[in-house]
Amino acid sequence: MIGETKIVVIGCGAAGGTAAQLARKTNRKAKITIFEKGKYSQYSKCGLPYVISGQIKEFNDLVEFSKNWFEKERIDIFLETTVDKINIKNRKITTKKKDKKTETEYDKLIIATGAEPFIPPIENIWKNNKLIEGVNILRTIDDGKRISSEIEKGKYATIIGAGLIGLEIAEALYKKGMRITIIEALPGILENTLDNDMSEPIHKELQDKINIYTNHITTKVEQKQGKIKQIVIKNTITNKERKIDTDILVIATGTKPNISLAKNIGCKIGKTNGIIVNERTETSVNNVYAVGDCTEYKDFVTAKATSIGLGSIAVRQGIAAGINAAGNEYVLPKGLLNTRTSKFFGFEVAAVGPLRNACEKIPVIYGKFTGSSLLSYFPGGEPISIKIGVNKETGEIVSAQAVGSNAAQRINVCACAILNSANVEAVRKLETAYAPSIAPTLDVLTIACDVAFLKYSRNKR
Amino acid sequence: MIGETKIVVIGCGAAGGTAAQLARKTNRKAKITIFEKGKYSQYSKCGLPYVISGQIKEFNDLVEFSKNWFEKERIDIFLETTVDKINIKNRKITTKKKDKKTETEYDKLIIATGAEPFIPPIENIWKNNKLIEGVNILRTIDDGKRISSEIEKGKYATIIGAGLIGLEIAEALYKKGMRITIIEALPGILENTLDNDMSEPIHKELQDKINIYTNHITTKVEQKQGKIKQIVIKNTITNKERKIDTDILVIATGTKPNISLAKNIGCKIGKTNGIIVNERTETSVNNVYAVGDCTEYKDFVTAKATSIGLGSIAVRQGIAAGINAAGNEYVLPKGLLNTRTSKFFGFEVAAVGPLRNACEKIPVIYGKFTGSSLLSYFPGGEPISIKIGVNKETGEIVSAQAVGSNAAQRINVCACAILNSANVEAVRKLETAYAPSIAPTLDVLTIACDVAFLKYSRNKR
Repeated sequence: MIGETKIVVIGCGAAGGTAAQLARKTNRKAKITIFEKGKYSQYSKCGLPYVISGQIKEFNDLVEFSKNWFEKERIDIFLETTVDKINIKNRKITTKKKDKKTETEYDKLIIATGAEPFIPPIENIWKNNKLIEGVNILRTIDDGKRISSEIEKGKYATIIGAGLIGLEIAEALYKKGMRITIIEALPGILENTLDNDMSEPIHKELQDKINIYTNHITTKVEQKQGKIKQIVIKNTITNKERKIDTDILVIATGTKPNISLAKNIGCKIGKTNGIIVNERTETSVNNVYAVGDCTEYKDFVTAKATSIGLGSIAVRQGIAAGINAAGNEYVLPKGLLNTRTSKFFGFEVAAVGPLRNACEKIPVIYGKFTGSSLLSYFPGGEPISIKIGVNKETGEIVSAQAVGSNAAQRINVCACAILNSANVEAVRKLETAYAPSIAPTLDVLTIACDVAFLKYSRNKR
Repeated sequence: MIGETKIVVIGCGAAGGTAAQLARKTNRKAKITIFEKGKYSQYSKCGLPYVISGQIKEFNDLVEFSKNWFEKERIDIFLETTVDKINIKNRKITTKKKDKKTETEYDKLIIATGAEPFIPPIENIWKNNKLIEGVNILRTIDDGKRISSEIEKGKYATIIGAGLIGLEIAEALYKKGMRITIIEALPGILENTLDNDMSEPIHKELQDKINIYTNHITTKVEQKQGKIKQIVIKNTITNKERKIDTDILVIATGTKPNISLAKNIGCKIGKTNGIIVNERTETSVNNVYAVGDCTEYKDFVTAKATSIGLGSIAVRQGIAAGINAAGNEYVLPKGLLNTRTSKFFGFEVAAVGPLRNACEKIPVIYGKFTGSSLLSYFPGGEPISIKIGVNKETGEIVSAQAVGSNAAQRINVCACAILNSANVEAVRKLETAYAPSIAPTLDVLTIACDVAFLKYSRNKR
């Protein structure tokens, strides 16, 4: 029976594609089918800015697993095919390709419908339900191609949203020689990645290269012959308006989960508007799993509902769903660490665990230290700043943020600490690898832990 | 009483210097005195090869804390001063500088006498108790200066010992344009750092650049006018002899702890010939601590006696001794992880925990994976190989070895796992930081854990 399991996956992004792959690895006999509404099979959305910048040659290079690849693994894959309806009583889904409808049975269904860009209300950006020329989002290969084709035509690029993706896009267009402006509604940049004290130095330095307007929303686009010309932004504190010359506008203000299919069959939807899943990626509906950006899970530290916005998490959920749907068992950790990183304009940033303002119910103290990646006598050392969050009562490490040399790898150490409920007293004594050409005798990471530990122990006394 | 504590430190290497510093930080009133037999205050021995190679300008650049620096911290420091005798009954030590003897009282004594190079018996290397011209060791700044002065005079350099330090010296002399030969008595290179399966690929690639004779010992030096000319090496399996042209010979065959002072006062000496210390760096003698390369501690995983040979550990012991001697408390982890790393000839290697052959009593299974530091579509990915050792019975990670991109930082993650008794099942699911320009969605580290976990779980069934 398990051998003949029919597994249907809706969506072939990182989460859905991985789920299908792992289902196949787990069960050589299962019948596995993927329906994908787009033109492409599993590709890296995160790589899009690097094709725009020219670091990666072609958009097609981002396709990690081709249609052909899936077919060789005996996974049926249907592109440009939408799912019309799911019938959970007789376990059938109805799909549509160019008006041709088909029914497919499933034993296990994996919903991986992803998310789509959230587009704030801005006057004049729509025409006939399409974004006007020069107004862009960046979620798909087609979006990327559109931006690339518009670069030649202009000099001024404006990005709405100073999150990781906004900054990656900003860097890509900067590398193409454009003059960059970033508009951010919140008071600082990277508000979902770093606490303000960690992002502020980056904010300051970036302003040498690009214009950044924080506390500003974009209210209106002024066009000329159907094409963007300027945008109007408004200071949310003073209400003062200002016009910004803009040849390309890219909106990078987050995403909203695609949940209509799941909602229709009664899957519980959570506070973040994602499909609620458990540590096996099961939804509230029998035999239905959900994975990736359409889902909601718990934060490892705070247990609060958290939306999914990271490819790394999508892949891990995909692994779990594929293995579980195929009849084996894979249980994810009890919550998300949200280990995150990026590099732009020479800054490497990384973080793990909840931000300061997401920790209301957990009393957290912080230790922070800035030093060099190498001992002072060795040439080539680079600055690295680390901030460690510690539960005031238990001493457990709950979060970490880093900016600088090897920030991501250092944050991985902290991720390992958080996942294993490590105490800051232990981690501050961690023997880190030392060699003059690689890292100092005492890493900035353990020194930051020292600082946090001193506050913690003073508080305990 | 504690405020007036008299703390005497013997030796101003990384361990002793750090101990004095931390004693001062802990106790502003303590009277702290350092006696150092050499000419220099706390400097980085590990940096010596990089002055020889020219990456660091001058040997003096290695001095991290000058005599002046210590004096500003109100730490009395006496260079070129040897300790003649320790009297533990009246807590006095007798020191000697140019035949002038002085007595100094202590309440707490910290022995940081370090180690000196172990020199194997080789015919003709000594003359009047000194190594003949061209025959070198590398332990002190003076040793480094001697090597540097000899580089100009020759073309052929031979290093005895293919450990981390031997390879660092080899690279330094290679960078100075010399032709390099390495002689190693054991069957492979890096026998104390990596298991053979991890070191073999490096061994093979290195042979394109330098000559390596494993299973060979050096029996004899042939000289000309008091200066080295050739060495005679012997294959330990076939007994076949061979002559190697050598203008500079550097012996890098490990060290032996300097323990005579400690032995004389009755400090327990361990199996590795180091002074046995506990997690507070206390010796078996009251009020006497010992730190750094002269000591012996336990391995964290195997609990076996382990000698100290890493600057990172010396510094951590120094921290503990300084704080404890000054009246506060600092307890080190129950054993050493021996987190170690180096970079040479383009290879970054790192490891933590015991090697395979040191694990007799612990049943260990291994998971190994080689991949890239970046996803395949992103340019600039570099190979990285990781091997994870797991306790067959408990599933705990006990060791890790890595060669390649960011090996050291990846090994730090494993060090954190080992220190916190993390299970491979947890770590294989670790959310590592992902971004196209930084690291793949699934890091080689967690994939290696996957491989190890599969073996572990198969074994459990």
